[in-house]
Amino acid sequence: MKFWKLHGAGNDFIAIDGRKDLTDDYSDVAKKVCHRHFGVGADGLLVVKESNNSDCKMLYYNSDGSKAKMCGNGIRCFAKFVYENNIVKKSNFTVETLASIQEITLNMLNEKIDSIKVNMGLPNFDPKYIPVDTTKDKFINETIIINKEKLNVSSILLGVPHTVVFVEEIDKNYILKYGPLIENHKIFPEKTNVNFVKVIDKENIQVSTWERGCGYTLACGTGITASVVISNYLNKVDKKVNVISEGGKLLIEISEDRVYMQGPAVKICEGILEGI
Amino acid sequence: MKFWKLHGAGNDFIAIDGRKDLTDDYSDVAKKVCHRHFGVGADGLLVVKESNNSDCKMLYYNSDGSKAKMCGNGIRCFAKFVYENNIVKKSNFTVETLASIQEITLNMLNEKIDSIKVNMGLPNFDPKYIPVDTTKDKFINETIIINKEKLNVSSILLGVPHTVVFVEEIDKNYILKYGPLIENHKIFPEKTNVNFVKVIDKENIQVSTWERGCGYTLACGTGITASVVISNYLNKVDKKVNVISEGGKLLIEISEDRVYMQGPAVKICEGILEGI
Repeated sequence: MKFWKLHGAGNDFIAIDGRKDLTDDYSDVAKKVCHRHFGVGADGLLVVKESNNSDCKMLYYNSDGSKAKMCGNGIRCFAKFVYENNIVKKSNFTVETLASIQEITLNMLNEKIDSIKVNMGLPNFDPKYIPVDTTKDKFINETIIINKEKLNVSSILLGVPHTVVFVEEIDKNYILKYGPLIENHKIFPEKTNVNFVKVIDKENIQVSTWERGCGYTLACGTGITASVVISNYLNKVDKKVNVISEGGKLLIEISEDRVYMQGPAVKICEGILEGI
Repeated sequence: MKFWKLHGAGNDFIAIDGRKDLTDDYSDVAKKVCHRHFGVGADGLLVVKESNNSDCKMLYYNSDGSKAKMCGNGIRCFAKFVYENNIVKKSNFTVETLASIQEITLNMLNEKIDSIKVNMGLPNFDPKYIPVDTTKDKFINETIIINKEKLNVSSILLGVPHTVVFVEEIDKNYILKYGPLIENHKIFPEKTNVNFVKVIDKENIQVSTWERGCGYTLACGTGITASVVISNYLNKVDKKVNVISEGGKLLIEISEDRVYMQGPAVKICEGILEGI
């Protein structure tokens, strides 16, 4: 089976063209190819399929074989893969995902992809949908108790539940300690991703994300987007913000009715998998 | 740059043919291709070079770019790579490494490699060479103190310093706690790998290794070999022993003047690296 390996801000993926496959279930393939020692190794598997309502369809699997609706860094890698393999031959196109139809814009430089912009849709502030177990109509700038300590948090739904904690400095030990405690706090019935955000100025922030069920990651596309949305809502940043993460830089832009995420997708290698 | 990814009992490697390269320094290449997120991802890099005294030469780099003299699981993958790429066209051949000249035997089944046997040379029991800071002439069945607790240990040099601790059951939490404490005990001036060994019967043991500078690994070829050598010296096993590790099975055979390690080498994929 032919494959590419790519990364988007350090989040790495195996991409394959599954349009001619009879199956729609790649759970076992994902577990096998994503294994770091027995497979090529990646955070997730991206599979191209035909779509009835978009230019193509993306199936996304986590490395443990579970299906996910969307992946912010993954869809940029997916977009590079379908364009450079001539599966989609235009620089503005749509991708059907299990979450919704995603609009992609390839920013070209000398006929090559320089960066990729994704319409991330609109965040949902309603605690019922995030979900957060509260009677309030938003869960922004609220206090939760962790180990008898008061923590200020803000939560929205952006693909998955995201909670932001503002910090003076990004400290990995602090993230490793408080990430899982907030993720599993009883106020979040479906758990939550936790984004630790340092505001540098109105146009620049730094983000580290503790991912629900995954732990510490180099960069989380939806988490970075959610961090800018909440920072902007609280008037800490403007509407166009550069985000620094351990894996790389992303640019988030907030317009009236949607949020855009722009960032790199890098090809690492292409090859042929044995025995799949 | 063309590459293969292979694994030997879960220890994974990128292999490249460097015979036409002008450089002998692959430290930066190793760091780049072995990175789990920004590269293909592997424990180490194997580079084929011409040899003056053997059929070919193996350069071995750890994922952090440091050079290592030998790697038990790595040399089996290296042997499969040079044979299946027609670099060496015989089933008995020699490989020059920074440690010594290694003798390889490919066990063929239906014209394919079934398993690979490596002459691991002779272990050294002399504490001066292991090294262990002791006045004794061997360091077998000795007591060291860890956290006020007495631990029975035995050490030899087999490529790198190896210490064996016999246990009733392999318990990962125990290994994660005691591995680093033994590795860094002051009696080992150059630190030590630590192998936790459960003897099942005279022909079967189970081994988990805490690797010096690496931590917990799925399987360590030299560590598994050292575990059988010490177990045999203490009369706990015979001279031909199956070893179960988390990454897979190896067969160790002790003869009068050498020790042989036999095990699998599995190709995962082949491909082309971008920008290298």
